[in-house]
Amino acid sequence: MLKIASAQMEIQPGRPDANTANILRQMEEAKANHADIVIFPEMAIPGYLLGDTWEQDAFLRDAEACAADVIAASEGIAVIFGSVAVDWTKKNNDGRPRKYNACFVASEGKLCHPEAMPYPFVIKTLLPNYREFDDTRHFFSLQKLARELGTTPKSLISPVSLKIRGRRWKIGCLLCEDGWSDNYETAPMKLLEEYEDLDFYVNISSSPYTLGKDEKRRRLFSAAAKAAGTPLIYVNNVGLQNNGKTVYTFDGASAVYSAEGLCVTAAPSYEEGLHYIDVEEIASLPARTPEKKTEIAQIYEALSYGVRNFLDSIDMKKVVVGASGGIDSAVAAALYTSVLGAENVLLVNMPSRFNSETTKDLAHALAKNLGCYYAVFPIEESVQHTMEQIAATPIELLKTGEKKTLAVSSFLAENIQARDRSSRILAALAAAFGGGFSCNANKAETSVGYSTLYGDQAGFLAALADLWKHQVYDLARYMNEHIFKREVVPQATIDIVPSAELSDAQNVDEGKGDPLLYPYHDYLFRAFVERWEKATPEDILDWYVKGTLEQQIGCEKGLVKKYFQTPKDFVADLERWWNLFSGLAVAKRIQAPPILAVSRRSYGFDHREAQNGAYYTRAYRNLKEALLK
Amino acid sequence: MLKIASAQMEIQPGRPDANTANILRQMEEAKANHADIVIFPEMAIPGYLLGDTWEQDAFLRDAEACAADVIAASEGIAVIFGSVAVDWTKKNNDGRPRKYNACFVASEGKLCHPEAMPYPFVIKTLLPNYREFDDTRHFFSLQKLARELGTTPKSLISPVSLKIRGRRWKIGCLLCEDGWSDNYETAPMKLLEEYEDLDFYVNISSSPYTLGKDEKRRRLFSAAAKAAGTPLIYVNNVGLQNNGKTVYTFDGASAVYSAEGLCVTAAPSYEEGLHYIDVEEIASLPARTPEKKTEIAQIYEALSYGVRNFLDSIDMKKVVVGASGGIDSAVAAALYTSVLGAENVLLVNMPSRFNSETTKDLAHALAKNLGCYYAVFPIEESVQHTMEQIAATPIELLKTGEKKTLAVSSFLAENIQARDRSSRILAALAAAFGGGFSCNANKAETSVGYSTLYGDQAGFLAALADLWKHQVYDLARYMNEHIFKREVVPQATIDIVPSAELSDAQNVDEGKGDPLLYPYHDYLFRAFVERWEKATPEDILDWYVKGTLEQQIGCEKGLVKKYFQTPKDFVADLERWWNLFSGLAVAKRIQAPPILAVSRRSYGFDHREAQNGAYYTRAYRNLKEALLK
Repeated sequence: MLKIASAQMEIQPGRPDANTANILRQMEEAKANHADIVIFPEMAIPGYLLGDTWEQDAFLRDAEACAADVIAASEGIAVIFGSVAVDWTKKNNDGRPRKYNACFVASEGKLCHPEAMPYPFVIKTLLPNYREFDDTRHFFSLQKLARELGTTPKSLISPVSLKIRGRRWKIGCLLCEDGWSDNYETAPMKLLEEYEDLDFYVNISSSPYTLGKDEKRRRLFSAAAKAAGTPLIYVNNVGLQNNGKTVYTFDGASAVYSAEGLCVTAAPSYEEGLHYIDVEEIASLPARTPEKKTEIAQIYEALSYGVRNFLDSIDMKKVVVGASGGIDSAVAAALYTSVLGAENVLLVNMPSRFNSETTKDLAHALAKNLGCYYAVFPIEESVQHTMEQIAATPIELLKTGEKKTLAVSSFLAENIQARDRSSRILAALAAAFGGGFSCNANKAETSVGYSTLYGDQAGFLAALADLWKHQVYDLARYMNEHIFKREVVPQATIDIVPSAELSDAQNVDEGKGDPLLYPYHDYLFRAFVERWEKATPEDILDWYVKGTLEQQIGCEKGLVKKYFQTPKDFVADLERWWNLFSGLAVAKRIQAPPILAVSRRSYGFDHREAQNGAYYTRAYRNLKEALLK
Repeated sequence: MLKIASAQMEIQPGRPDANTANILRQMEEAKANHADIVIFPEMAIPGYLLGDTWEQDAFLRDAEACAADVIAASEGIAVIFGSVAVDWTKKNNDGRPRKYNACFVASEGKLCHPEAMPYPFVIKTLLPNYREFDDTRHFFSLQKLARELGTTPKSLISPVSLKIRGRRWKIGCLLCEDGWSDNYETAPMKLLEEYEDLDFYVNISSSPYTLGKDEKRRRLFSAAAKAAGTPLIYVNNVGLQNNGKTVYTFDGASAVYSAEGLCVTAAPSYEEGLHYIDVEEIASLPARTPEKKTEIAQIYEALSYGVRNFLDSIDMKKVVVGASGGIDSAVAAALYTSVLGAENVLLVNMPSRFNSETTKDLAHALAKNLGCYYAVFPIEESVQHTMEQIAATPIELLKTGEKKTLAVSSFLAENIQARDRSSRILAALAAAFGGGFSCNANKAETSVGYSTLYGDQAGFLAALADLWKHQVYDLARYMNEHIFKREVVPQATIDIVPSAELSDAQNVDEGKGDPLLYPYHDYLFRAFVERWEKATPEDILDWYVKGTLEQQIGCEKGLVKKYFQTPKDFVADLERWWNLFSGLAVAKRIQAPPILAVSRRSYGFDHREAQNGAYYTRAYRNLKEALLK
């Protein structure tokens, strides 16, 4: 038998000390449980999403020292783990010390040398460089190394041999993307397949959660193990890592695949733990059908794990939520309360003259349902003071002595209210309460900047900003039904028209609200940002003309006709939002809080953008001209 | 003769339509001036820093159509230009359509095929992937293409032949980084050198300005041309491009280098224009010594160009500056006034009880010197209202009915003032005035988050946030002397102790001010962020122990002894700022405005960072223990 422990470890990014202590502890535990090999994820020592901390030589030396400790501890148990490997004698293309994203295999205190590799560790061959991944910025790939050595990846990619109780095991070690080679010139798994005496593959990963990714992982690794006719052990980390603007949860979902492609063990998502398997029993184990979770259950799981871990990581224990009576703030309040407990959450309703009794009552009802702290801070007096101060204070052009008074437009009055709430009240209350305040923006608002900078767009974290409006509603229903098991988000908050209530034009009691038609715009904006090959007005208009728009963007049938009487209306709406999406909304997102990612493309440093303004292609202009003439 | 026009073109990022119109106009002009070839910069059609706009297929098709127009216009004049080339039949490693960063050479309406290239254009071989550069995220390099084709870069890199009036010219085309190959496995210039009948090199670039980069460019290209014994024509663009968080100016500095390595022509920085040279005369031209500009003159040039272009790009014509009487806001006010004129700048002084008559008078004096709009908006009443509202409004824990009142600490009172100024007054005044308001933060404050979020850290642009405090002072003196040629920034503002004046502890009349010791901390923080191999407390403490710290970080000698009586004091200061630099300051920078870059490493997406908290290596902890025991 060969007993393997897969360590689905919670990695703390940027903390080699803490991670190494954790690794050493788990090695002890695995040894006590008679495991022969224990496997840790990719970049288990330094963490993975570290930004330019990779440019600190002292940090690299520290990670090396930690790796040496782990290697030294491999007495009586072999260890496979990921970390950074530095070749101080060579340079990366940026002139900095050469760094590899490496997989180390150690036994009896010593590294095991891959058969054909010029280093005593396995080097990641395929470096992802899309979405949040910046591997190529920091690491030298095996592909580049092969070119530098005047050879091919094929001649370097080779198994590692590990002698356990007299028997030699040949292991094909892969790092994350190495197993996802469809669009690359090199396929590391296929190259390892050519070693016919390969016993099993190990794929160590640091693969963030994305809605639907786990199913894709299972399909892919199942097919790969089957094609190779060799078992595969997939070890991914849990925890939270970020690139500043975007925060990712890591769900783990470590699993073992048999040579027949069956998934025979699956670790529970988001839980740190050691999982044992006897390699010689893999073939005889039955397929394990993973628990089917609904999309919204997965989203809640990711958000609650993400919020809890993010708060821990910045040592924040209390949260203030501005509660308007609307759906976004209600869902944020319920989410934070489910994570922190009612005594650590303060809901604040901040009415101006434009807020209805309806929504004020709903905010209070929400707070009562949650049992959390509650207060009402009217902003009317302060807003009036600001408007009067502007009206009463002339500005003087000193070179001529000319004086004039500035006018406050109704649009400006709306923004004054929003900023008064967040920057005057919430920021101060959060500090006094001993925590931060939440940004409750959803992804539709974030897409087009339907928010006020330093107003409702502010906060320490935008936990819902990767959810479309319809997902926010789904989450409200889900939390009521499955988390709180009672009506916490009031049904009337779910039913009421969404409105910012910043002017008479947004009177909810008269059914007036946001200019966004969420059942359509949710899907239009999703096509702008989440499609792999991003949609632009040219594509949208083309689909509109062809009558395939609803099918292409995935919204309900009949909506386009319902919302837009004429092609002119349709085009005006499209250009209005595209101008905002590519214009002012970019400026706002640059200053937005970190966003907790759940989708296949989150705003922040996942979807990267320059402040360049809206562009309409020649083909779009021609299409439009033909349509409207 | 062969007359070449170098088009130091102003590229508008993300605007193929406008850029193509500009290119066609300049081609006409060059033709009218009897040029044989006109050369445009890298990515002249689409622009270069576009974020993930590269993932929009419609945008790529549009750039292709524009390139076709330029190629078609090459009748009677040959054209060399940079743009994106798409091979729709192949994929990038991210699964999206294959994109090359390409150099096109066209004559008589047709593309000229490089001798050994599989496409009718030159492909960028070396893709930079450091600082702001993300080439590898979007483009497929010639290196990768060679691997895919099972060959080497050497076998593909080849000159382009161009027949002009019967004579065939062999041109070695390079794209930007291809000429900076020191740390790469492939050296495109050297490979082209092997073609002995090469007539000249062309390097088309899109190379942003960095302080000191122009000298480096000249040294490098001069040496390269000399080593090859072949003239080199360097064509770089002007204009402004950004990656969201960081804004870059492009200075152009297009030049021609002789086969002897002399720089024989040099285009003026930051000016669009066509520059002509006869290739056969290059050898006989004298070296052109570029005008020597002081560092601060270069900085002013970059900042004023950057501010003007950024305002143009977002169609903003007026700016409000909060004027405290201190140096940062005074320099910001002078900078914006020098760009926009006094009638488009509004200075606002916003005193609370803690602001001295001294600084209030200085703010007024500054405004008078500039002749701009001026107003005083006291914040005392609003700040008191906020503090009273918090004190008077109990919060109630609804699950128990327990009520309590939150206390306002003096630290919180400081932040309330800062937010009142920016989010309540400046944001509203800016909208009423018809513009934006400036963030006046410098790089030292930005390094450690010595600022209030939604307070003095807010604004539409942080124009000074890549300048250390001593550079802000230099800029004040420079603008007084060289731009305004009179005292605009009051001398007393230059002389007074820097202070936020948010509490009695920061009373400038008593000589009290910021906790930052700028003559030392400017240089300490610079070592954290600007050194190529970033310094951390481990390095700093090591240098401190060895007595080489001041020399290593470049600050004045004797300061360390002057500021820190004991090693314990030194360590406490180091850890205090490192904790902030890696902690709260990161959270603040995530929500900071775009920063105008001038240094070799600006905050934003130049220096990328995760919100992971401070880390101290094992070696640091050992050093510290040994030092303090």
